Amino acid sequence: MSHPAYDELAATWQRLHHFGHLQSIASWDRMALMPASGNTARANAMAEMDGLLHGIRTNPQLALALERTDNESLDDFQRANVREIRRDWRTANALPAKLVQAQSMANSRCEHAWRTQRPANDWKGFLENFREVLKLSREQAKFLADRTGLSPHDALMDNYEPGMTGATVDKLFGDLQTWLPDLVRQVRNKQAGETVQSPVGPFPRGAQYAIGLEAMKLLGFDFDAGRLDESAHPFCGGVPEDTRLTTRYREDSFVGSLWGTIHETGHGRYEQSLPRDWLGQPVGWARSAGIHESQSLSFEMQIGLSRPFVGLLAPRLAAHFGNQPAFEPDNLFLWLTRVQPSFIRVEADELTYPLHIILRYRIERDLIEGRVEAKDIPVLWDEAMAKLLDVDTRGNFSNGCMQDVHWGEGLFGYFPSYTLGAMYAAQWFAAIRAATPDLDARMAAGDLAPAFDWLRANIWQQGSRWTTAELVTRATGGPLDAGHYRRHLETRYLGA
Amino acid sequence: MSHPAYDELAATWQRLHHFGHLQSIASWDRMALMPASGNTARANAMAEMDGLLHGIRTNPQLALALERTDNESLDDFQRANVREIRRDWRTANALPAKLVQAQSMANSRCEHAWRTQRPANDWKGFLENFREVLKLSREQAKFLADRTGLSPHDALMDNYEPGMTGATVDKLFGDLQTWLPDLVRQVRNKQAGETVQSPVGPFPRGAQYAIGLEAMKLLGFDFDAGRLDESAHPFCGGVPEDTRLTTRYREDSFVGSLWGTIHETGHGRYEQSLPRDWLGQPVGWARSAGIHESQSLSFEMQIGLSRPFVGLLAPRLAAHFGNQPAFEPDNLFLWLTRVQPSFIRVEADELTYPLHIILRYRIERDLIEGRVEAKDIPVLWDEAMAKLLDVDTRGNFSNGCMQDVHWGEGLFGYFPSYTLGAMYAAQWFAAIRAATPDLDARMAAGDLAPAFDWLRANIWQQGSRWTTAELVTRATGGPLDAGHYRRHLETRYLGA
Repeated sequence: MSHPAYDELAATWQRLHHFGHLQSIASWDRMALMPASGNTARANAMAEMDGLLHGIRTNPQLALALERTDNESLDDFQRANVREIRRDWRTANALPAKLVQAQSMANSRCEHAWRTQRPANDWKGFLENFREVLKLSREQAKFLADRTGLSPHDALMDNYEPGMTGATVDKLFGDLQTWLPDLVRQVRNKQAGETVQSPVGPFPRGAQYAIGLEAMKLLGFDFDAGRLDESAHPFCGGVPEDTRLTTRYREDSFVGSLWGTIHETGHGRYEQSLPRDWLGQPVGWARSAGIHESQSLSFEMQIGLSRPFVGLLAPRLAAHFGNQPAFEPDNLFLWLTRVQPSFIRVEADELTYPLHIILRYRIERDLIEGRVEAKDIPVLWDEAMAKLLDVDTRGNFSNGCMQDVHWGEGLFGYFPSYTLGAMYAAQWFAAIRAATPDLDARMAAGDLAPAFDWLRANIWQQGSRWTTAELVTRATGGPLDAGHYRRHLETRYLGA
Repeated sequence: MSHPAYDELAATWQRLHHFGHLQSIASWDRMALMPASGNTARANAMAEMDGLLHGIRTNPQLALALERTDNESLDDFQRANVREIRRDWRTANALPAKLVQAQSMANSRCEHAWRTQRPANDWKGFLENFREVLKLSREQAKFLADRTGLSPHDALMDNYEPGMTGATVDKLFGDLQTWLPDLVRQVRNKQAGETVQSPVGPFPRGAQYAIGLEAMKLLGFDFDAGRLDESAHPFCGGVPEDTRLTTRYREDSFVGSLWGTIHETGHGRYEQSLPRDWLGQPVGWARSAGIHESQSLSFEMQIGLSRPFVGLLAPRLAAHFGNQPAFEPDNLFLWLTRVQPSFIRVEADELTYPLHIILRYRIERDLIEGRVEAKDIPVLWDEAMAKLLDVDTRGNFSNGCMQDVHWGEGLFGYFPSYTLGAMYAAQWFAAIRAATPDLDARMAAGDLAPAFDWLRANIWQQGSRWTTAELVTRATGGPLDAGHYRRHLETRYLGA
């Protein structure tokens, strides 16, 4: 059956895939390797490419081709691809080219300056660039809202988590707030009675890098199709065929770099395992930010922080850093699962982490919907940190509202995905445990295949073949149920 | 005065500059960092970009705009820019888009496979890919020859060395052959009577990297606008605002990596010092391959292998590798200037190096002009190596005809530039010495400014403002005169 309109769309997105490859590598390089003076030239080059990509996506021909596919005889797979193409097309066509280019320049400038401003605790300097980023992000949100009928922040969130709304997130996060603070209190009381030895540093950078690579191997990362490097803010970039992870090192602690690496390895394996035959078409893309985070959190929390996996790491830590009592596996597990409210989201423990997300979600929603301004962030931040986490961040911008680069890069609507991802991950592992009752024993023996096989079959190899809701139901027999998350946390932290 | 046609051309090349930036970084990454499985996706992405760049350069509008500039009131600088734009335009428009894309794919495939084929001495495997590269390079040469009236190989050489012809190269290289073999003999006789201590390895990679960075600092490389990394074949890539050098390490010798780094630093400083205000326009590009090599060879040979500079490096070598008698400066200089015919061009001494070039120039000319075939290369190589250098390369493809990646990448017409560059470099330093009679004393004291200031003013800051012939005459008062090269070699090696 011939389907020229579909073929035209597929060829266009194949072309976008090729250009996007260059943009991804340039972006990764900018964050991981690029020397400071290269930034203006890089920002100009990437803005030019953003303009080109936007021009291709907004070619009026595409609207016609999309309409014409309605009358073409397509199979279910092709229909799914058209659904995802339409989504991508709709997002691009909601925005004028001028705004896209202005955002690329402003976000790039703000992100680059942030790299030196954060260590200098320079909120004023950051604010100067960030005002423009926020202004343009609000314009973006308004355009998307007008097009979709969603509220401005929901319209941004829809870019990362299609189908998810503020109403649902409010409900999920509201529910979380009814039991999580109480659970934190119970766990802290329980832990107050435990004696735990802390590992003693320093932990040399080279040894941290080496053990990071070992963990990645244990977790099945394909080094023929990816790398591990260093950047100010850890991320997973590159392309599915060449996935670039980064981490960062502090010689006084190995936890941030190692579990950061494990986290990014989850993102990386998802990308590396997307169906190769579909690459270049939107149906082959990762499903959503929340599903992506469900992979990184499956690796970091469900596997990485499990007692069996900690048992696998313990002798490796002793080998690389020298043996010490703290590396005894039971002690190490207790130490790693200590709960302690703190400043930094990416270093937060599993239990207090969602409280950081609730804080960010509420501030960014109000920023985008115009209820608060950029200059108000520090006060709002300090108040929420005090209330949710009992932590004093006043004047400490570096470890407060400047700790994440998301907003500086114009990335609004993403934060909820982290906690949605944690909820999804708990649901995947409930299913994996149901299918493999001896999962813990097998993991303790170094056999992680049951988890990887399930994730590959049910998530990685599905790309964007189904909507998120369908994907979840197909994989686990039902919709997202935060009860799995609660049970996971209670089991791990109260041994219930 | 308004000049819309000129402005249109300038805007077009500004756009090419931006896209070219992404292509340059992707290309550097491919050679320096990319894991093996990423290659197909990268080759596809870069071929797509080659197609785009070619499409921009072959837009029929440009031919009209170029014509119209004849009637616009332009200043001399703008005229020079139009001259260089026209050159770039002419090269691009001589080739059909299909050929450009086919070459990008074939060259990319051949280069990538070469990286494993060379260590495996796999000439048969290489030949399989290389046949296609040669076939397409011949097509390219024929198109360019038809357009310019030059012979096919001259037409390729003109891409790198505008204005240079095979007739001139034959004359220069013919002259070289009248005195160089005799000079090699004299020097080897002289050196046979010298007692020289060789440094004793191993020389750890990390220490080689560290001393490479020190040498780059000594030579004024701007690390805020560039990096040093590692690749199979050393090169200088990236963009003027972010210049990426590579080298390679062998733990049994530090010479290849260190003088390789010094060589690439010369390329790098040329790129980093091109006039910033002109970037994005062809008038701001480096003048030619020969002039580029004259910078790398100014650094590697004129400075790097001079007795004063060797005196600067000696204590640093002792500090990094541990002290040993061979690092005594006079001995080190004697050892570094030993003349010994050998297999590898990039490791050849200064005196025998041009003989490697003569060999390559003659083979590639005959390949492109169809007088010999790809399969004939090993026999031709073996014969020429035996005759010119008295070296037996039979069966040793790795260290014979597979040692360079140039031809595998479809880079024909480039090799003569190395020896032209050596001749230019000798001429620059004759001028520098004339202006700074105490040059050696100042270099010995670590003051390299006289050389850098002269190169900056006369070469780096001139970009492509003048033709090569004009540049040489403006800088040194006369045209290329190989007599400077002969005097330089005789002075250094015979102390005449």
